[in-house]
Amino acid sequence: MTLNEQLAAYSAMVEKKLMEYLQPQEDKGQSVIFEACQYSAMAGGKRLRPALVLEFCRLSGGKIEAALPFACALEMIHTYSLIHDDLPCMDDDDLRRGKPTNHKVYGEAMAVLAGDGLLNLAFETASDPANTALVSAEIQLKAVRALSRASGMEGMIGGQVLDMKAEEEQISLDQLKTLQELKTGALICVAAQLGCLIGGASEEQTAAALEYARCIGLAFQVQDDILDIEGDEEALGKPIGSDAENGKSTYPSLLGVERCHELVRELSEQAIQALTPFADTGMLPALARTLAERKY
Amino acid sequence: MTLNEQLAAYSAMVEKKLMEYLQPQEDKGQSVIFEACQYSAMAGGKRLRPALVLEFCRLSGGKIEAALPFACALEMIHTYSLIHDDLPCMDDDDLRRGKPTNHKVYGEAMAVLAGDGLLNLAFETASDPANTALVSAEIQLKAVRALSRASGMEGMIGGQVLDMKAEEEQISLDQLKTLQELKTGALICVAAQLGCLIGGASEEQTAAALEYARCIGLAFQVQDDILDIEGDEEALGKPIGSDAENGKSTYPSLLGVERCHELVRELSEQAIQALTPFADTGMLPALARTLAERKY
Repeated sequence: MTLNEQLAAYSAMVEKKLMEYLQPQEDKGQSVIFEACQYSAMAGGKRLRPALVLEFCRLSGGKIEAALPFACALEMIHTYSLIHDDLPCMDDDDLRRGKPTNHKVYGEAMAVLAGDGLLNLAFETASDPANTALVSAEIQLKAVRALSRASGMEGMIGGQVLDMKAEEEQISLDQLKTLQELKTGALICVAAQLGCLIGGASEEQTAAALEYARCIGLAFQVQDDILDIEGDEEALGKPIGSDAENGKSTYPSLLGVERCHELVRELSEQAIQALTPFADTGMLPALARTLAERKY
Repeated sequence: MTLNEQLAAYSAMVEKKLMEYLQPQEDKGQSVIFEACQYSAMAGGKRLRPALVLEFCRLSGGKIEAALPFACALEMIHTYSLIHDDLPCMDDDDLRRGKPTNHKVYGEAMAVLAGDGLLNLAFETASDPANTALVSAEIQLKAVRALSRASGMEGMIGGQVLDMKAEEEQISLDQLKTLQELKTGALICVAAQLGCLIGGASEEQTAAALEYARCIGLAFQVQDDILDIEGDEEALGKPIGSDAENGKSTYPSLLGVERCHELVRELSEQAIQALTPFADTGMLPALARTLAERKY
């Protein structure tokens, strides 16, 4: 199977299961909020995080079906964070993946509640008694803990706070790394961690998986920053690299575009090198290279 | 110990432990969000929900310390819901318990994130490996599940959606009951449920505890509605009951004030009667009577 076929297969599994979770069990008149959650959860997206959960579980010797609820829980958390990030009081975005943002369709109050609802549903999903057939209570509890820490104030939310501060002042390269490790890195790392946890990976494998995730998470962010300025400059007809700053510190503004291109390639290779404790590395090397080469 | 002494003792335990949970473990520059969480979590409040967790655990034969993390988790969820409820796009409240609301002090973006952070922290707290000394992984996982369902879209958040719809149209008494059962009832019921779960209550005791919680939750809401209109009318110098409606359906507007006073007394007695499966009912009868008689 090619990388794209593998990603499509995982994506289809995750979307089917997600839609099951996003149905009201008993409609007491509140079903519009499930609709709002479905709207954002089904608005496309690469399903990168759930794919990492499933692939690391498989490569650790576990069953993909055992990891599926946790992959869905993680995608719910990712979706909630996008809904809240887009709110007028946050980034105030009208479009996400080419479609109107949640609050543009359902209103601000419903968007706040839909985000809250998805976050709750993630933990409801991770603690579902139906999971116990394939995953012990101990492991499920560890998964709940890992998810909550990664998405909480020492993880993603902490990164969002640092991002708000970075709007107001220039930050150093170290501070930018910390910001990115928390804001986007934490959920990518916990994807690898959950897959290893449910698949029964060794400690060495888990450490390797976390290093892989750290590297591709950082490469992904640096590439995003490059694409942002190259896109802006092409649109404006300016030579690449002439307008790397819009006031906010980014990898290109701090390191230069050329060094960023190099860094992405280095991180991609470093991610692949980290995988030696896995006998079979599946789609992971191809994924690391593709993320580093993407143009969109 | 009098009821007030018992409540004060529980409150002190909960507040001490809450402040421990609300410290950043590693400050990476995001500590202001912990401050924002502490601000709302420590803004007073009756600590009714955690007191119910602790008392039902004790009366079921469990250790209070075993229930304390779950009592704190529930109070975090209650606090998050207040922060998000007060937001400009929701109820747009400037004051809560006589103090400026979270977004008035920390700004809207931080208030959204502080609410999100408290919700995550609740699940982090309920899945803390430190709990395992006193509570099995199976029971902790059940607690996570119960919390997430009570606060989620089939529980409290569902009730908030119904409440938004009730702003736009008149609703029936049955619809008002459903709204209240979800919006405020679900967290009060899960308090009883958590206490029973951790204390090792029998099924009969758990059913009794849930009935007690249902009755006091409803009595509390009806009394709230009564106090709202009596307060308004005293302030306006009008006779009680003359202006029971401001367009939104409430228990007094649907049942009349006199019937509401009766209903509160009935529910309070019904709550107390429900407790027969408990050999010792501790502070619960006095609590049911006090909630029904309160004037503030």
